[in-house]
Formats: sequence, C-alpha cells, structure tokens
Amino acid sequence: MRAGLDIGGTKIDAVAVDDDGIRTASLRLATGFGEAAVLASARDAVEGLRRLVGEGFETIGVGIPGLVDPATGRVRHAVNLGLDDTDFGRELETLVGAPVTVENDVNAAALGAYHLMGLEGPVAYLNLGTGLAAGIVLDGRLWRGSRGVSGEIGHIPADPAGYPCPCGQRGCLETVASGSAIARLWPATDEVRAGDHPAQALFREAAAGDTEAVRIRDDLATGVAAAIRILVLTVDVESVVIGGGLSHVGAPLLTEVQRVLRSWAASSTFLASLDLPDRIALLPEGLSVAAVGAAMLGRPESVLHS
Amino acid sequence: MRAGLDIGGTKIDAVAVDDDGIRTASLRLATGFGEAAVLASARDAVEGLRRLVGEGFETIGVGIPGLVDPATGRVRHAVNLGLDDTDFGRELETLVGAPVTVENDVNAAALGAYHLMGLEGPVAYLNLGTGLAAGIVLDGRLWRGSRGVSGEIGHIPADPAGYPCPCGQRGCLETVASGSAIARLWPATDEVRAGDHPAQALFREAAAGDTEAVRIRDDLATGVAAAIRILVLTVDVESVVIGGGLSHVGAPLLTEVQRVLRSWAASSTFLASLDLPDRIALLPEGLSVAAVGAAMLGRPESVLHS
Repeated sequence: MRAGLDIGGTKIDAVAVDDDGIRTASLRLATGFGEAAVLASARDAVEGLRRLVGEGFETIGVGIPGLVDPATGRVRHAVNLGLDDTDFGRELETLVGAPVTVENDVNAAALGAYHLMGLEGPVAYLNLGTGLAAGIVLDGRLWRGSRGVSGEIGHIPADPAGYPCPCGQRGCLETVASGSAIARLWPATDEVRAGDHPAQALFREAAAGDTEAVRIRDDLATGVAAAIRILVLTVDVESVVIGGGLSHVGAPLLTEVQRVLRSWAASSTFLASLDLPDRIALLPEGLSVAAVGAAMLGRPESVLHS
Repeated sequence: MRAGLDIGGTKIDAVAVDDDGIRTASLRLATGFGEAAVLASARDAVEGLRRLVGEGFETIGVGIPGLVDPATGRVRHAVNLGLDDTDFGRELETLVGAPVTVENDVNAAALGAYHLMGLEGPVAYLNLGTGLAAGIVLDGRLWRGSRGVSGEIGHIPADPAGYPCPCGQRGCLETVASGSAIARLWPATDEVRAGDHPAQALFREAAAGDTEAVRIRDDLATGVAAAIRILVLTVDVESVVIGGGLSHVGAPLLTEVQRVLRSWAASSTFLASLDLPDRIALLPEGLSVAAVGAAMLGRPESVLHS
C-alpha cells in the first residue's frame, strides 16, 4: 500500500493506493502555513490514512507547488505554503517512519492523470493554474528532464511584441494563458461570483459580448493552443490533458482552444495532418490526480530516468 | 556486426559497426536518383561493406531524408532522391537478405551523435539543413514520439509578424534559421566561393560589416537560440548538438548563438539559471553520425518506445 499527498495552499488531498494504483482510501485536511505547520498537516494526513486502511505504507509520495529536488526531497519557493528552503522530504520521513518522495505537483498530476484517465501513449498534462506548465509522461513514466525543468513551457515566448513577463522575457505563453494573466488583464472582480474562478467570469462576460473580455479570452485560447502545438511538435505526445484552476471553465475552454487549433489547420495542411483538436481533453472534475500520481511515484517503474 | 547507411541526395555514407558501436569499416558511394537507382546504390554499399568486413550483417539501418514510417520502412517525399512513396525497407531487405530498419536521417544522426560524441544525459541533435528539425535521445535511446513528429520544431512560430512559411503558418523558426531561409533572404550567390555553404558566405559578409548580412545573421542566430530554448524548456535535454549544412560555418555560428543566449540570460534570472550557452556544442566535422546512428538502430535497446 502506498500513500500520496497533494499539498496545496489551502488543503491536503491524501489517498492510499494499492500496487495496481487502485484508490483504497482518501481524506482531505486543511493545510497549515509555514514549515512546522505544513509538516504537521502532512503527518496528520498520513496518520489519518493509516487508520483508514489499517496498515502502514511502503512509500509516501508528496506533490507540492514549488521548486522540488526529487533526489533529496528539498523544497524551495513554495510561497503559498510558506516554505522557502526546507528539507521537506527528510523531515516528513522522520515524522512518519516511511520513505518519502517529493515531486513538483504538476509532474505528480501528470502521472496521476495518465493512470486515472486510462491513457495510452505519451501524454502531457497542461496545468493552467497561476502559471502555465506541463508534466510529461513517456512510456508510462514521468519524464522530469535533465535538471527538472521539463515542461516549463509557460516561459517560451510566442510574440516579441507581447507583454513583459516577470521572468524577464517578453511574450511568454504564461503572460496570456494563465490565472496570473487573467488577474492582470481582466481584474473585473465585480463579475466574479462566489465560488467562481475568475476565468469562469471572463468566459461568461465574453459569451455575453463584452469586447474586452472576448479579446482576452481569445488571446488565452491562442496561448493554450500554442502550448499544445509546442508539446506535440517537440515531444510528440499523443494527447494533452488540460487541468488546473482554469480547467474549471469546462467545455467553453476546450471549445475555444479547439476553435483556434481548427483555424490553424484550415491554413496549414501540415498542422491539419497532426489532428491537434482531437488530441486534447479536459481533466474530468473530481479526480485527485496529483495525490494519486504522488502515490504512484513510490513505484520505481513510475519514473523514466534521464 | 551491423551496417548503417546515410543516404543523401549526392552520396551514401556507409559504415559497419560492432556490438559496442565501434566502427570497423566505412565507404562512400554516389547515390542514384529514383527508386531503382537509389536501391541499387544502397545494395552496392551493403555489398561493399560486406567485402570489407568479410562477413554478413545482423541488421542494416538506413537514415534517409524524407517522411519515414519506421514500423514498415515506407518512405515518402524524399524529393532529393526522387522517392515519392516507396516500400524502401522491404525492397532493400529483398536485395540484401537481412533485416532493414529505415529512419528519418535527423533521428539517425541524433543517435549517432550521442554515441560518437560520448554524450551523457538527454540530448537533442538540432539539424540546420534545408529545414530546421531536431532528433531527441532520452535515456540513451531515440525518442520518436507518438506519430514520428517529435523534434519538428522548425514549424513552431516565434513571431506572429514573421515571414510566411511554406507550411501555411507565419513566423516559423525555419523561416529565419535554416538553409532555405538563407537562400530566400540572402540570395547573394556572387559571394559564395566554390565549396562554401551559403551560410559561410553570409557570416563572412556580416563580419565584413554588410548591414543586411548582419541583420539576417542575427535573425538566424536568434532563431537557433529560440529552438534551443524550446528544446530545453520542453524536454529539458542536457545538451543540444548543432549539426547540418549550416554547422559548417563552425565557431562563428556557435559564437553568435551563444551571444544571443547570453543577452537573454542578462535580462532573465530564470533563463540565466538554465546555463543555456554552456549546454550547446557544434557537431565535430567528419563524423558519420547518421550512418553510425542508422547502424545502432538495429539494436532493440536503441529506441525508446512510446
């Protein structure tokens, strides 16, 4: 039995899975802030799962939003959790008495989406959260790259005349196709209903004909489409799963991105031959992909070493 | 013993390698034009190698510039060879009596560069020939992708206001950073000395202060740098080897590309952290990378299946 934790800024999603990746138990806890509190929440989540399944865990995997060194379990710049630079994996190992693997949450989600969605062939999980980044699964295994920056496509520029990016470049995909882009370009918080993601409000206003909302939505869809084109032309993944906060927009997001991809195919037989509109899907709601993926990381065969 | 053939528009480069990838014999033959002539040249190359090494071959690998289906050995659109749509692999098998694997020449060269240059970690071979495309080697094995389009990064647009591309898109990297781009943008054939690649003449004129040559050279270097950024941020290859006709420019090409990468790093701590200028190298002159890579393709462990 393996445990997986998806540690987010507000909650920990925790699952226990058997060797076939079948989920046998799950729970959710509020996350503390700062190293001691996050570690205590993570320990509580593992202990809670242990009581649910009635046995200990062979391995514990953790997905965390920050810069992670999977070799050491060190975590940096997890700003939403108040973790600046901490030996998170080793500290948690001491608390729970089992081997802990720590991974970037987008990479963990990619592995989880691959298994939970029953996908085949190479897959990219395109996370549209505060930023834009992808996790890549090749040959059924997580591909991290040489230095762990594989999938950081949000910082590929697509327009020399585009918006400046906090990364120091200009026209990065993340400047038009991410939660931070929407917050900056369309701070129309009056339109955001309780429980809505700002992207849902943006799409609603665009559908209602607000010309500025239409322009920002179209730029967003074009940026997502460009990310998909990069993933297919570089890695040639068979499918791209769109997840993250923006994916709560649901079908209208998929429709707009497919509209852009179809318009490109109409003027390029080369792009048309790639069938891009049929190679993308939304992550279904309610799947704990990052937690399940984190649990799978405990299996040695889940990672493709460079 | 395995044989590898690199079939180009004017010559076939043929090598015999042992199981450790050590070259034991090589020869070069002129290539015919059209299916019958190319097949006859390939057969002659294999027979010539057989006489040189004094034994038959377990496998024969072929690298060929065109659309290749490695599963069937079918070749399409190899315009320089006069092959439009032919069962090249099976035809050659019949002629030589040994299993034949056919692969795109850039993919074959990637595998050959990895072995001949003694590289470690994930590697991309960036071919600057008539077009711009990359071959990718992960975990020491060729990564073809789901549909064989992995590395087709020449058709990723980097500028919505860029030049139209024959592929139907606009601003593709190939429109500024390829042999076809130089032929179109700088048709100054008077300046091309006998035996020179037009890119060598372009770099010479730019060094001499021709402002138009400087502009085209700088756009070319920027396009190559953008290709490298895409390869690292998407796949996170540890190193990028630059080969193809344009690499005959030599050190001045590497210098200009590194200059662009350093200027980007100066304004982006994120890019600076990636050490891009130190992760690129030119393919050394005189290595038969596509022929050796084609020979290695006969080993089952040389390909990473999706």
